[in-house]
Amino acid sequence: MRYRKIPDETIRRLPVYLRGALHLSRGGVESTSSKELADLIGVEPWQIRKDFSYFGDFGTPGVGYDLSSLISRVNKILRLNTGHEMALVGVGNLGSALLAFPGFRTYGFEITAAFDIDRRKIGRRKAGVLIEDIATLGLLNTRSIHLGIIAVPETASQDIADTLVKAGIKGILNFSPHRIAVPRAVKVIAIDIAMDLARLPYYVPAG
Amino acid sequence: MRYRKIPDETIRRLPVYLRGALHLSRGGVESTSSKELADLIGVEPWQIRKDFSYFGDFGTPGVGYDLSSLISRVNKILRLNTGHEMALVGVGNLGSALLAFPGFRTYGFEITAAFDIDRRKIGRRKAGVLIEDIATLGLLNTRSIHLGIIAVPETASQDIADTLVKAGIKGILNFSPHRIAVPRAVKVIAIDIAMDLARLPYYVPAG
Repeated sequence: MRYRKIPDETIRRLPVYLRGALHLSRGGVESTSSKELADLIGVEPWQIRKDFSYFGDFGTPGVGYDLSSLISRVNKILRLNTGHEMALVGVGNLGSALLAFPGFRTYGFEITAAFDIDRRKIGRRKAGVLIEDIATLGLLNTRSIHLGIIAVPETASQDIADTLVKAGIKGILNFSPHRIAVPRAVKVIAIDIAMDLARLPYYVPAG
Repeated sequence: MRYRKIPDETIRRLPVYLRGALHLSRGGVESTSSKELADLIGVEPWQIRKDFSYFGDFGTPGVGYDLSSLISRVNKILRLNTGHEMALVGVGNLGSALLAFPGFRTYGFEITAAFDIDRRKIGRRKAGVLIEDIATLGLLNTRSIHLGIIAVPETASQDIADTLVKAGIKGILNFSPHRIAVPRAVKVIAIDIAMDLARLPYYVPAG
């Protein structure tokens, strides 16, 4: 099922709600209110109710949200219920950190392929994943991988994006500060650590 | 000047507006509208106008926003106009990638101190920054550093957070998936790459 006309901002918040719900659920909580969830993650309760309203009835008025059903529905909306294999391009410092990163599993992601240009790395394994020759990246379309991670130097990121698109990749997580151009059918999520950091000084009294 | 009662969500969006404004400005644009800026970054124009309204008049009706003044005002609100030194704790794969990351400079951030527990790393330089013994982390309060980055394994993150707080650090960028506990006066921004990634499959047609 494909939902229509959902604002990107709502989709952006769903994983935040999901993380909050997972946190409460792990703590043994079985149901929650928009107020409790809102306090936990730092948004307004009306925002949560409005976002969930796009997908039909989530909660019971006066009772709240059943957490396991909320988690399962958000997982389904975000298509996290099926599991997703990812191809990592670039096994430098950042790529190596991503290969070892345990957090991807929370949402059903797994890096199952890794590519690098460095002959000394090709053929070796890192965190259990074989490092393959980047020259063979175009052959990815023979495998069941639809998501790619770009962790190469900035100057190479557009070339890699082009190759990933040709190889049938539909979604890209881009760590390069460079904005990559892709066809409209391909979705890019850019991780911008510096931008996330930029709100920190606001909260920090001048020293 | 300290602004009051600004929603966290607004503060979260200001760096996004800033990045969009910087992008337009670099492209030679001198003024913009909430519509143009909204289209560029994927939010609604009313949201931008509402967020800016917390800080007084930003734009001229019918004319729009002067980009250099918008950039300078957002920089001032977020306190990015003064520059910020940061201490990095943990020079593993992730820490090394952060030391080499060029994006921090866009917002006036610079890693000027780095700490690790590994004797083979201590005393060496990486990206020009001397790697110091983590045992001396508590002495940070003798320097003009108020922001810290935690890039250590999950099991060590709370200890490191405690030491940073004791050393006078007021803001922490936490890369550990573990939620760290700090006094109310200390602000933590948690980078959760997996959560950012969790909205990608929504946009990707099932293969």
